[in-house]
Amino acid sequence: MRESSAGLLLLGIDPGLRVTGYGLLRYSGSGMKHVGHGAIRTIPGERPARLLQVHRAIAALLEEWQVHEVAVERPFMAVNVSSAFVIGEVRAAAILAAVSAGIPVFEYSPAEVKQAVTSYGRSSKEQIQEMVRLQFALESPPQPADAADALAIAICHASRRSLRSATVASAMGGARPGRRVIAG
Amino acid sequence: MRESSAGLLLLGIDPGLRVTGYGLLRYSGSGMKHVGHGAIRTIPGERPARLLQVHRAIAALLEEWQVHEVAVERPFMAVNVSSAFVIGEVRAAAILAAVSAGIPVFEYSPAEVKQAVTSYGRSSKEQIQEMVRLQFALESPPQPADAADALAIAICHASRRSLRSATVASAMGGARPGRRVIAG
Repeated sequence: MRESSAGLLLLGIDPGLRVTGYGLLRYSGSGMKHVGHGAIRTIPGERPARLLQVHRAIAALLEEWQVHEVAVERPFMAVNVSSAFVIGEVRAAAILAAVSAGIPVFEYSPAEVKQAVTSYGRSSKEQIQEMVRLQFALESPPQPADAADALAIAICHASRRSLRSATVASAMGGARPGRRVIAG
Repeated sequence: MRESSAGLLLLGIDPGLRVTGYGLLRYSGSGMKHVGHGAIRTIPGERPARLLQVHRAIAALLEEWQVHEVAVERPFMAVNVSSAFVIGEVRAAAILAAVSAGIPVFEYSPAEVKQAVTSYGRSSKEQIQEMVRLQFALESPPQPADAADALAIAICHASRRSLRSATVASAMGGARPGRRVIAG
């Protein structure tokens, strides 16, 4: 049962060629609620085929959950140039699924995401998982870590949204959600 | 008028966020024929919107020309990691258009492409343009340079294909076309 009046459905994505984590939460003025999370695991094979798997799986999630907004991490560091090529390709596979469906995509730096869930910019994978667990009062930390990261990205977006609302309400300006990279 | 019996329609793509070159040629056992070339120029704006423009323009070309096979350059060097992210994204936008339509994609290194058109692995943009012009007996060099590069990629694929045929015919094995990255 879908309640569109209950707020916005936000999808966070942590793209990876082998494992892409995703996290869904419902955001309303009063707070955020965990909806679900998981991981897309691609079948080993050539890269374009794996990109297509990610692309289609994200498109299916967007459709199934009637997602309103998507959040992803902004490209940052990579071990080397060739891994950056691959990360770029997988990010595009995910982003294109959203923009093709007219869904707005927002980007956040890894530091912004960590800050949003742990109150400081540097933290381990385990800390992220535990903070995400606490945020939603889950019984156990989200698995795999990629799904916890994706939920953290969605939390980051939701918290930026609420910051914006508060700021607009108090007419202070300045604070705003992460860079909206495309309009829906 | 389309003559599917006249050989394979090959599309070479030189992906770029601002300008993506493309080149079309028809390949048959007896040789290759220039069909067309051009460039997709994206409207300045946020990156995902530009990726979508490239993605849709390539999809439209594939459909319009009933393309049989696509060739792109394999990721190689980038000035830096952040430009590698962007190159990866644009490549994925192009590749996904093909694999979504079930069209096989082949990748070649820049050195392989240059070798195919100039007989040695290093050459300037102007040399590539001139060699492509000569190959097809065009009145002037293909413009922009991105379109000439895309034609060079298509020529590289066609010449690898003919190499393979010759090799198979003489039962020598070994030589084969560029890495076929996904089956149609």
